[in-house]
Amino acid sequence: MKFSKMFIPTTKETPNDATLPSHQFLVRAGFIAQTGAGIYDFMPLGKIVLDKIRAIVKEEMDEAGANEVQFGFVTPLSLWQESGRATTMGPELLRFKDRKNADFVLSPTNEEAVVNMVKNRITSYKDLPINLYQIYTKFRDEARPRFGLMRGREFLMKDAYSFHATQEDLVREFELMEATYKRVYERLGLEFRVVEADSGAIGGSGSKEFHVLANSGEDTIVVCDSCDYGANIEAAKRKKRHFTPWFENTEIDVKQERVETVGFKTIEEVSNFLSVSQAQTIKAVIKTAVYEEEKKVVVFFVRGDDELEETKACNSVDALELLDSSEDEITQAGLCAGYVGPFNLPAGITFVIDEEIKGEHGLVCGANEENYHLTGTDLSSLKDATYFDLVAVQEGDKCNCCGGELRYTKGIEAGHIFQLGSKYSEAMEANFLDANGKSQPFIMGCYGIGVSRLVAAVIEQNHDEKGCIWTKTTAPFLVDVIVSNAKKDDELNAGLEIYEGLKKAGISTIIDDRTKERFGFKMGDFELIGFPYAVVVGKKLTEGFVEIVERKTLEKQEVALDKVVETLQTLIAQ
Amino acid sequence: MKFSKMFIPTTKETPNDATLPSHQFLVRAGFIAQTGAGIYDFMPLGKIVLDKIRAIVKEEMDEAGANEVQFGFVTPLSLWQESGRATTMGPELLRFKDRKNADFVLSPTNEEAVVNMVKNRITSYKDLPINLYQIYTKFRDEARPRFGLMRGREFLMKDAYSFHATQEDLVREFELMEATYKRVYERLGLEFRVVEADSGAIGGSGSKEFHVLANSGEDTIVVCDSCDYGANIEAAKRKKRHFTPWFENTEIDVKQERVETVGFKTIEEVSNFLSVSQAQTIKAVIKTAVYEEEKKVVVFFVRGDDELEETKACNSVDALELLDSSEDEITQAGLCAGYVGPFNLPAGITFVIDEEIKGEHGLVCGANEENYHLTGTDLSSLKDATYFDLVAVQEGDKCNCCGGELRYTKGIEAGHIFQLGSKYSEAMEANFLDANGKSQPFIMGCYGIGVSRLVAAVIEQNHDEKGCIWTKTTAPFLVDVIVSNAKKDDELNAGLEIYEGLKKAGISTIIDDRTKERFGFKMGDFELIGFPYAVVVGKKLTEGFVEIVERKTLEKQEVALDKVVETLQTLIAQ
Repeated sequence: MKFSKMFIPTTKETPNDATLPSHQFLVRAGFIAQTGAGIYDFMPLGKIVLDKIRAIVKEEMDEAGANEVQFGFVTPLSLWQESGRATTMGPELLRFKDRKNADFVLSPTNEEAVVNMVKNRITSYKDLPINLYQIYTKFRDEARPRFGLMRGREFLMKDAYSFHATQEDLVREFELMEATYKRVYERLGLEFRVVEADSGAIGGSGSKEFHVLANSGEDTIVVCDSCDYGANIEAAKRKKRHFTPWFENTEIDVKQERVETVGFKTIEEVSNFLSVSQAQTIKAVIKTAVYEEEKKVVVFFVRGDDELEETKACNSVDALELLDSSEDEITQAGLCAGYVGPFNLPAGITFVIDEEIKGEHGLVCGANEENYHLTGTDLSSLKDATYFDLVAVQEGDKCNCCGGELRYTKGIEAGHIFQLGSKYSEAMEANFLDANGKSQPFIMGCYGIGVSRLVAAVIEQNHDEKGCIWTKTTAPFLVDVIVSNAKKDDELNAGLEIYEGLKKAGISTIIDDRTKERFGFKMGDFELIGFPYAVVVGKKLTEGFVEIVERKTLEKQEVALDKVVETLQTLIAQ
Repeated sequence: MKFSKMFIPTTKETPNDATLPSHQFLVRAGFIAQTGAGIYDFMPLGKIVLDKIRAIVKEEMDEAGANEVQFGFVTPLSLWQESGRATTMGPELLRFKDRKNADFVLSPTNEEAVVNMVKNRITSYKDLPINLYQIYTKFRDEARPRFGLMRGREFLMKDAYSFHATQEDLVREFELMEATYKRVYERLGLEFRVVEADSGAIGGSGSKEFHVLANSGEDTIVVCDSCDYGANIEAAKRKKRHFTPWFENTEIDVKQERVETVGFKTIEEVSNFLSVSQAQTIKAVIKTAVYEEEKKVVVFFVRGDDELEETKACNSVDALELLDSSEDEITQAGLCAGYVGPFNLPAGITFVIDEEIKGEHGLVCGANEENYHLTGTDLSSLKDATYFDLVAVQEGDKCNCCGGELRYTKGIEAGHIFQLGSKYSEAMEANFLDANGKSQPFIMGCYGIGVSRLVAAVIEQNHDEKGCIWTKTTAPFLVDVIVSNAKKDDELNAGLEIYEGLKKAGISTIIDDRTKERFGFKMGDFELIGFPYAVVVGKKLTEGFVEIVERKTLEKQEVALDKVVETLQTLIAQ
């Protein structure tokens, strides 16, 4: 391809709202252009990258035996009513009416559509398993679309859905998809991590996320320094801690006591006043849980030095979301802020206790009475309490697998695989006949890759202050032949000869043959756009030499004209 | 690919509303599935065909030097307000609001989006010409979505937009696109015709349509039996006709006369009563023209034996659409139905006369007075009349190019190319600096191919009563290896060997290895799905023979096992 024939509008202007390098550089280098909040056009270079990533995803999915399909992007709302998600999904699900006042949605995901496709078309276990995927447009009406392609509203996703007769077969496919995804990210040249994940609103049991590691990642990933363990903080587990109270292993029988703690409301104040460690107190976190048809105040209890992990908390009470409770809500619930504890709560209050402190004794907590706390409590004496993993793992906590040290890293969620089970097939009455002739709901898995998000993720992981640095498999072209002065026939002809030679060798190449731009401008474009290599045809041409520049290191080497193809082949193969 | 691993749900059930063969067979053969009015899912075989057509379109567009991009499918309404089409386009343009109450549309076409992309990014004639295209989803909220993929609401279209500094350069690109489109349809193996077309709502001057010839086509195409001339009936021209009045070339001076014609209102009645041929009368067609902010009654005059072509008529008065006028509207306009003529019309009535009768004399027309007509009229005496080509060309009319005979044929519009001019660039103030440093609006062309419609068009042109007959370049697989009884190891193994051999020879092949289906069922699927060739591995295997079946002719030939690949290579190359 020739620069002069391609629409590559690079610019020095950074969009006002662009905080991430990928957002800034992809716009500045002419890959994408914003047309509305969270909506982007792909310009020619951007389209090539998108297609390269799409092709790798397709190849690996096909290799894994999945069948490509395409669902309507516009989907009747009735399908979402069948599954129940028309009610449970919030405004992210964009709804609209057509000219005949019929209700539709713009698909944000396609569990409903795929069940609708398979229902009554696969009727026997003999036709299972099957894995159907598409690489097609999605729309999520995000409350705050931002970060360019990272959190857009219209985006390209690969979504796959598998159907099985047994849970064992689902697990087999789940593992196959995990291996397939790993190959995808490896082929894209990305540093990534597979982690345990929360299954969230999509439902189902096991799920894993694939994170592209980058400082700018929105997600906090907990990883172990000693073993392979990794998890999204929303799902991360750690080794249980226990803090021995002073009377443990003594004959002393410590009883629960009500102590005056006038004005001491925070964990810090109470622990100082009573001279106990924060770990030996119980912290109450009051939230308002939102359900389809009601809201209610709920209380979460965690160890005093722990933090509540909101996703875990939300899952523990099966709510759509958790909000901070207002003072009014807290008062109306009969709670006494600063003095809330698990004993003697007002009747009817839902509460959940972190499983780490199940059965612990000697902990300090609020007495549910202004200016009073309880000491010497015994949690095993609490009846009908619900225990759940509620805490955010912290750096330095111990790995539950190997005892190693856990630390945080940042990731961009670029893939997610789920063992869905029969949630959707049951809701939509999609059944098959098993080997015994008995009707059963399909057992399903679902598997997503954020294809357009990966365009941004590659750059978040691979850039410098000058611009993008594409990996070899994602670069729009591997080599940029820069003709210093394209008005000079000898330079232009030598450039064209190199360009043809590289193309013939199967190396995807662009030639910067623009006559109206100077060398410095062309070099700037090379660095901003981020082709992996440049061949500079300039002054040394008369001596038979050109310069090869590696974008990543910006290292240059002089190469004889007849060695250009060979040298690049070697560099690319490395 | 193995049948046993692919989701190909064939069925005997024809959708109730499916009148076209392509609609019936594509659903029955498991290519597509309807999810809503005019909205279809592509199942695995359908997706393969769609991608094959898409790939051919892409290759030819790339070869022509166009740059692929992708516009947001969801587009801010504001862009459509800039161009003015937010008002002029009716409910086909689906509008909706997002969660923040901002207005958006689902793109039915992308003139606005492309001008928005290029505006301020291309500023100099030095960066012209450029041709940007995409192959992406469109949505048109059709009043009556029908005919399966033929007139869907969500569909896949290739839309290209070129930008030029001069009209001459636009014409060059227009011709390049015409040649490119021809190659596309040729490569798809389709019988097609390039015809003159009406430019319609999209605006601009010259335009051509590409029609796939098929009896079920919605469009009437006028073609010449003697030369290359072809045109959509909406734009077709014919040789002017002239009917010599009896007094022409005599000394007799025939004057306009008012004659009583009580109760004779139709052309037939009047011509019989006055003993003149229908060709020597003037027919008045009264319509109500709809504009953005008003409606008004307009009158079209054509020769008595001609029919008004509504699209031409609509264009002649620049209306959004024409409706039949009600009796009330006609009376209110001061018109006397049955007696309307171009002379002495009530003041303020808009009327247009067909250019064929410009300057004719001796024609009979209504007198604009109950029960009276005029004879001996002289149209050249009419001041300030507007003339326009208004008539529908009829079979048997003479070709304007060569004098040959014109006839009708039916076509499916599968492509349309337009010389747009500066309609959109002017409206959206998208300018460039010309060689003299003067700011000019871009001169544009636009070029569409209905990619998903082509899936149906291939079948409309190529089917029989048993099912689809794919062309070699559009078939999901070229060869179907049918293992008669896949429970027999020798048949299955021989089938697999042939399958591997064909794949190795680069022939796309599927093997029907299903154990649960009988031979008759597999043969039925082959005929319904329409792979170009089948290799039947059956009883003669023990003698070393299989049968090759050609889908189009259903002719069979026995072939020795070691000649299968060679025979198919020869057949495919034909």
